[in-house]
Amino acid sequence: MSDLAFKARELDSGDQLADKRAEFVLDDAVYLDGNSLGALPASVPGRVEDVVRRQWGRLRIRSWDESGWWTAPERIGDRIAPLVGAGAGQIVVGDSTSVNVFKALVGAVRIAETDGSSTVRDEILVDATTFPTDGYIAESAARMTGRTLRPVTPAEVPGALSERTAAVLLNHVDYRTGRLHDLPGLTAAVHAAGAVAVWDLCHSAGALPVGLDEHGVDLAVGCTYKYLNGGPGSPAYLYVRRGLQDRFDSPLPGWNSHAEPFGMRSAYEPATGAARGRVGTPDILSMLALEAALEVWEGVSIEAVRAKSLALTDFFLECVAAHVPEGRVESLTPVRHEERGSQVALRCSPTLEFARAGGAPIAGDVMKRLIERGVVGDFRHPDVLRFGFTPLYVGFADVERAARVLGEILG
Amino acid sequence: MSDLAFKARELDSGDQLADKRAEFVLDDAVYLDGNSLGALPASVPGRVEDVVRRQWGRLRIRSWDESGWWTAPERIGDRIAPLVGAGAGQIVVGDSTSVNVFKALVGAVRIAETDGSSTVRDEILVDATTFPTDGYIAESAARMTGRTLRPVTPAEVPGALSERTAAVLLNHVDYRTGRLHDLPGLTAAVHAAGAVAVWDLCHSAGALPVGLDEHGVDLAVGCTYKYLNGGPGSPAYLYVRRGLQDRFDSPLPGWNSHAEPFGMRSAYEPATGAARGRVGTPDILSMLALEAALEVWEGVSIEAVRAKSLALTDFFLECVAAHVPEGRVESLTPVRHEERGSQVALRCSPTLEFARAGGAPIAGDVMKRLIERGVVGDFRHPDVLRFGFTPLYVGFADVERAARVLGEILG
Repeated sequence: MSDLAFKARELDSGDQLADKRAEFVLDDAVYLDGNSLGALPASVPGRVEDVVRRQWGRLRIRSWDESGWWTAPERIGDRIAPLVGAGAGQIVVGDSTSVNVFKALVGAVRIAETDGSSTVRDEILVDATTFPTDGYIAESAARMTGRTLRPVTPAEVPGALSERTAAVLLNHVDYRTGRLHDLPGLTAAVHAAGAVAVWDLCHSAGALPVGLDEHGVDLAVGCTYKYLNGGPGSPAYLYVRRGLQDRFDSPLPGWNSHAEPFGMRSAYEPATGAARGRVGTPDILSMLALEAALEVWEGVSIEAVRAKSLALTDFFLECVAAHVPEGRVESLTPVRHEERGSQVALRCSPTLEFARAGGAPIAGDVMKRLIERGVVGDFRHPDVLRFGFTPLYVGFADVERAARVLGEILG
Repeated sequence: MSDLAFKARELDSGDQLADKRAEFVLDDAVYLDGNSLGALPASVPGRVEDVVRRQWGRLRIRSWDESGWWTAPERIGDRIAPLVGAGAGQIVVGDSTSVNVFKALVGAVRIAETDGSSTVRDEILVDATTFPTDGYIAESAARMTGRTLRPVTPAEVPGALSERTAAVLLNHVDYRTGRLHDLPGLTAAVHAAGAVAVWDLCHSAGALPVGLDEHGVDLAVGCTYKYLNGGPGSPAYLYVRRGLQDRFDSPLPGWNSHAEPFGMRSAYEPATGAARGRVGTPDILSMLALEAALEVWEGVSIEAVRAKSLALTDFFLECVAAHVPEGRVESLTPVRHEERGSQVALRCSPTLEFARAGGAPIAGDVMKRLIERGVVGDFRHPDVLRFGFTPLYVGFADVERAARVLGEILG
């Protein structure tokens, strides 16, 4: 047994979260793609079967009341809340992340409009390094609210803020590099400029503490199919902090967000609280699968998850350094813990002997070979190998094996 | 056996769609609420189990390609297309009806903007009798595109159209009364005024022929959990007719609608075709449950469904007239076939001996008693008993029993 394999065994035997792995359906592969699609929690299949066969099949329409369908968006929101440091009543589940980015950003601009100052806040700042959908949707939100969109890097935000800034949309963790941005500091800077801070938590929720309430974040969105294991395309969520809920003016005021949805009134009157972020009829199958998936968090502290996540990525970087020949890959993920999410992105240089004139990019080839050998990560155009570390079900022996196989492929 | 019971038996024995009932999970109740939540198709539970256990649980991320997850929105759209008279490549499934109304109506206004005329088309007409969400979302679409929203009844539309009209949002079948509106005639009138026609098909798709292509409808939306039996909150759909697809400019340009979604480009470039109507990551569990549900339409002609639907509602009205004492209920549903959808709405007069000072409205009480006796319809505020007739699984004996029980309760 190599030194690193021995170290992995030691780390695994000291892992307080090791038992959680049994609550997931896994196989012999090393699954390092939980930052794209979380593995299946073992409690989900039975729950979904009950929802389909009994709740829908037998109770049918009665389930809207009797099976708690109607209240699911807020109930499940409250289940996510402690994982992102939010008190109850501020998160509602539903729609895709993109749709929630639109609600949040338009809502933020409208809140900035009503802050009583006489300045015209005509600019939206958006993280230029963000997952593209946030930029596309921000462009639409800017166009539809008559604002100008200005893409900047998160580092440039403090210098770009001014009395013209209405809202700022930032990613907590960069989807490509895995860089963790300074949510407390940037939120404070946004507030100091009198603007509204919107955070996208897709790559942080369930992997590290977010502290939404503690840091005074105004609005936030996130998906639930990565570290929250909700299943493919499971519904996203919207956080509006309590103090802003009455000023949240949704651009998608569907009947589910009405104060009296079954009153069938022609005049719109928004609900109070988190329900104001609802739009149409909630997607029950996916939503209740997510609810079952969230049960794995019972008794888990997000601080313990973070500690293990950092230990996993530290160990992966150590194993990559040992197993992969010098110069084959370069880590895009920051070394400093306070700048690292729960993934490692390795740039795979196209100057190797693997490189071919034309054909698939080299990093894509490497990822294919990794997957063939049971190490599942993903490839991000043009040259990034992305490995996500989900502390609830990835262990240290997995990490050592992944780096070793990568070394063999690139050796 | 009463004459009506005998007639029901005759009608059932001549019913060409009678065998379809066996493809649904049903019990002894008469389920007349399929216009709110369709019954469970028998093929769905097994499919969902496969999606959860094998596609998600075992293949995990590979299923985006290998299980056809990525292409599901257009593939399932093409499955819905023949039911609403649309050729392939014009319907995409995803998001809620409310979100799709927003996409369609904003898209319609933008199409009207680019029609080359010099007139400012500054008005949106909306069906004032519509399901409330359409009105609420239309108000937001008007606000965000700088238009004025003008609610009119469908009958008033021809007179209200002018060179100021940008777009018109109409319901094909009124959710409350079951009235079927003249889609061909109104669409032609909208076009004659140079405006764009948007139809909401929630209460018609799967119950009667719509003829989107034939009648030149511009954009349409609909839900899939009523007559299409997709399950609670299953994803809705958006139709953009082929000739307008290149001019469709979505207010929700999420990454799934990008020409090259995995290019991760910072500049947005819309996809061609129906995919332009996508937004975020598709909700796979619900979407593939819907796909299984749509298999029951194999070999079914929508014309046969319409013929049976009219026979069912005719027979229900006949049985109500026979079983329910004079003056107890009044039908809000038009007698003329060309004005009738697939439901019957009975206003239940509050002047009966049942009426109480305070307490629940009388119609709500009546519906509760009906449900206790195995006849499931629904109640719409303030005084409407609503009965939906789903030709694929409702028979004529069901209809006779429903009217008979109603008569006993009101007798």
